[in-house]
Amino acid sequence: FYFVFYLLPAMDGDTKTMTFLQEVVDILLAYIVESFDRETKVVDFHYPNELLQMNNWELQDEPATLDDILISCRATLKYAIKTAHPRYFNQLSTGLDMVGLAADWLTSTANTNMFTYEVAPVFVLLEYVTLKKMREIIGWSDGRGDGIFSPGGAISNMYAMLLARFKMFPEVKEKGMSSVPRLAAFTSEHSHFSIKKGAAALGIGTESVICIKADESGKLIPADLERRILEAKQKGFVPFFVSATAGTTVYGAFDPLIAISDICKKYNVWMHVDGAWGGSLLMSRRHRWKLDGVERANSVTWNPHKMMSVPLQCSALLVREEGLMQNCNQMHACYLFQQDKHYDLSYDTGDKALQCGRHVDIFKLWLMWRAKGTIGFEAQIDKCLELSEYLYNKIKDREGYEMVFDGKPQHTNVCFWYLPPGIRYMEDKEERKKHLHKVAPVIKARMMEYGTTMVSYQPQGDKVNFFRMVISNPAATFEDIDFLIEEIERLGQDL
Amino acid sequence: FYFVFYLLPAMDGDTKTMTFLQEVVDILLAYIVESFDRETKVVDFHYPNELLQMNNWELQDEPATLDDILISCRATLKYAIKTAHPRYFNQLSTGLDMVGLAADWLTSTANTNMFTYEVAPVFVLLEYVTLKKMREIIGWSDGRGDGIFSPGGAISNMYAMLLARFKMFPEVKEKGMSSVPRLAAFTSEHSHFSIKKGAAALGIGTESVICIKADESGKLIPADLERRILEAKQKGFVPFFVSATAGTTVYGAFDPLIAISDICKKYNVWMHVDGAWGGSLLMSRRHRWKLDGVERANSVTWNPHKMMSVPLQCSALLVREEGLMQNCNQMHACYLFQQDKHYDLSYDTGDKALQCGRHVDIFKLWLMWRAKGTIGFEAQIDKCLELSEYLYNKIKDREGYEMVFDGKPQHTNVCFWYLPPGIRYMEDKEERKKHLHKVAPVIKARMMEYGTTMVSYQPQGDKVNFFRMVISNPAATFEDIDFLIEEIERLGQDL
Repeated sequence: FYFVFYLLPAMDGDTKTMTFLQEVVDILLAYIVESFDRETKVVDFHYPNELLQMNNWELQDEPATLDDILISCRATLKYAIKTAHPRYFNQLSTGLDMVGLAADWLTSTANTNMFTYEVAPVFVLLEYVTLKKMREIIGWSDGRGDGIFSPGGAISNMYAMLLARFKMFPEVKEKGMSSVPRLAAFTSEHSHFSIKKGAAALGIGTESVICIKADESGKLIPADLERRILEAKQKGFVPFFVSATAGTTVYGAFDPLIAISDICKKYNVWMHVDGAWGGSLLMSRRHRWKLDGVERANSVTWNPHKMMSVPLQCSALLVREEGLMQNCNQMHACYLFQQDKHYDLSYDTGDKALQCGRHVDIFKLWLMWRAKGTIGFEAQIDKCLELSEYLYNKIKDREGYEMVFDGKPQHTNVCFWYLPPGIRYMEDKEERKKHLHKVAPVIKARMMEYGTTMVSYQPQGDKVNFFRMVISNPAATFEDIDFLIEEIERLGQDL
Repeated sequence: FYFVFYLLPAMDGDTKTMTFLQEVVDILLAYIVESFDRETKVVDFHYPNELLQMNNWELQDEPATLDDILISCRATLKYAIKTAHPRYFNQLSTGLDMVGLAADWLTSTANTNMFTYEVAPVFVLLEYVTLKKMREIIGWSDGRGDGIFSPGGAISNMYAMLLARFKMFPEVKEKGMSSVPRLAAFTSEHSHFSIKKGAAALGIGTESVICIKADESGKLIPADLERRILEAKQKGFVPFFVSATAGTTVYGAFDPLIAISDICKKYNVWMHVDGAWGGSLLMSRRHRWKLDGVERANSVTWNPHKMMSVPLQCSALLVREEGLMQNCNQMHACYLFQQDKHYDLSYDTGDKALQCGRHVDIFKLWLMWRAKGTIGFEAQIDKCLELSEYLYNKIKDREGYEMVFDGKPQHTNVCFWYLPPGIRYMEDKEERKKHLHKVAPVIKARMMEYGTTMVSYQPQGDKVNFFRMVISNPAATFEDIDFLIEEIERLGQDL
């Protein structure tokens, strides 16, 4: 077989198609096995300008041969980050689940769209079944409520804000913000930046997102929330939305949901829980207490593509009130949502979202859930938390390490500074800080150049660059944690 | 192998993993071959309540065996819509490209995220290369400008509206709509509902989206646009956004872009072209004149997942002004977009979008482009237009058919009524209309029950339900068009 034109739907294209796809699959299977091998690099790093020159990436007028296509596949994987690698810790989403992957391959093959039952009957039902199960786990009685899978936590959070505004001022849909008083939203200073992005997009404005103080460990301080709500009211703003975070991005902190829900109730404000990162702890009998009070929320973001290792993307917004999403977002497009169809139209869920076409994100979560059972997810999550506790215990008193905040982490985030010997005993505090700020970026750059592991770093407030280790990778073991520490020391000792 | 726990990353999981994934692939390969077979049904249709009972779809606490997982995969595909089937015409996105599919399988296997070069080096570069190529094709000199892939045309259109507002009133990002005068957006009455959804979400309000009259064939009337802009200004609104449609959803009409651009220039309004459906005609030397003037637009939505048959989802927003997307949407999250990284930070494109995590949608388009070349896409698009012309010629004078609008369709949309013999000669026009309204839904329901083909229908304005045939499926042939007509007559003759 030489060209794509010989494959299906070409006449007699069956055999050539099977051969071609099997060749691709063989490449993928080899990549998968390699990705889990600790002898393999996490990344074969090259700078953008180098990488642009390492292969011919340009698009041409003329077709390439299928052999060239296979070469392109190999080249793409050669320079890709091995996100399944047991020592890849760089993001909140790591690892590669084999059943999730199989499900994603099936999803691509089915190549359909979530807008109606008509074109995605099974997937629409599986979304229905799964969302109900997730609401039961949140604690809403009989799993009642509403929800949708959206393209990521940022969009889920924006949907929540949109719903909160619509609930209080339904006329905003037709008349816009000019019909609405000045609104104020509240979230912790440690919350995810998508809350501000959402407010900017929705025409509320970032200045109307009031950042509430967090305590030393990153939890929102309820007293400060109440104070700022009162202050906003006095200034003539209408508080409409509080976004509590269950698992902050950097510290992994859980805001105190019960205290926050009392305040939301008192001032009649929509309570959202951004559990993009921490929501999955609801699956663990040992850790779900960290989200106590989540059942009082009006809406919850929960990204199975993070802590549950579902392949990207898989984010759910769960909503307590039924029907609100439909009312808020529907536009009744008559070419999609015909009212004279022959089946139960409540399964045409597409008009609940801002999207028109919507990618099928449900099947991988559903199939993984079947394969593991709830207890399998629980075991996977508990193990990641165990690993992070191991890391914390290992470094909290170790020479050359300082923890960014005291106490055992609540999630798998372990935030710490590594101090190379050269600055460990520096007396001038300012000088030391200046040096320390440069340590993590250099170690990270070296990690990538050696390709041995990847972990994230960042500054926060007045704290200079520190490592944020997170563990969501089911492939990681105690030995990999040991390796990480040894590697940081190896790469950083001369700094 | 019995359980997921025996697969990678389990010790010695390599062989079991390869066996399991190969079993899934075998199921998928069989499904693919079957999907292209005209002897196979497009759909094995069941009503939602039936389908819920045809399999055990519930999620359990306990894990299922891998055999059960394979059974679930087979069941899911059994009841799925065969969107690759040569007689599936239901949506603007149809067909299944083998290279696109292979690329999507690779994307799932790479399982990474578009937010930074750090975690998606190759995909970020391929997005850069492809967006540049698309801008060249639009006609922006040297392919300059900006852009991003977003989760669908509705979001791309919303991004365009967001940019237009920010360009005129940058303070809206911080201060919200209360800092901005009443805005007005303009789009054809035939435009896609996402324009109104976007306006509702952005706090502009659906009433501020002014629907411009379209002519009989569905094209926006420029004189009416100018009149309504003046009217809005007189009422104190600030016109900020015109969305012209290149390929309307139902009629496939192309708005006159040059005339519209003159008006946008005169009144200093952002010109957006929603080419989600019709943008791909830019790839065809024979048809790209339909978008003459597109190079004058400030932004263009173009969905390769529609007319170019790239697997779902693949939608691009192209923007003429560089840097605007970044300024409009960035929030500088310090845990992702560190400014002290060791590589060229212009490749960290994630902050241009509202999303935080962003699915890799680029690889399937890029790989298909390599495999077909620009001329391959052109041939594929030209063939679909030829088929629709064939259909139009076949039915325009055929007994029992009425065209919804006169003249050759501009895109592959062919809109028509089929009149069963029983109502063909009804004298009472109102009575006839009432009957006719019910014909398409019944034929469609029968199509689905027999599973032989799928085509969409809808009413529009005062026009009762009609069929909207669209052809984007590269597997379709002249014989399939003949079949569709015969099938409509077979299923509808008794009505």
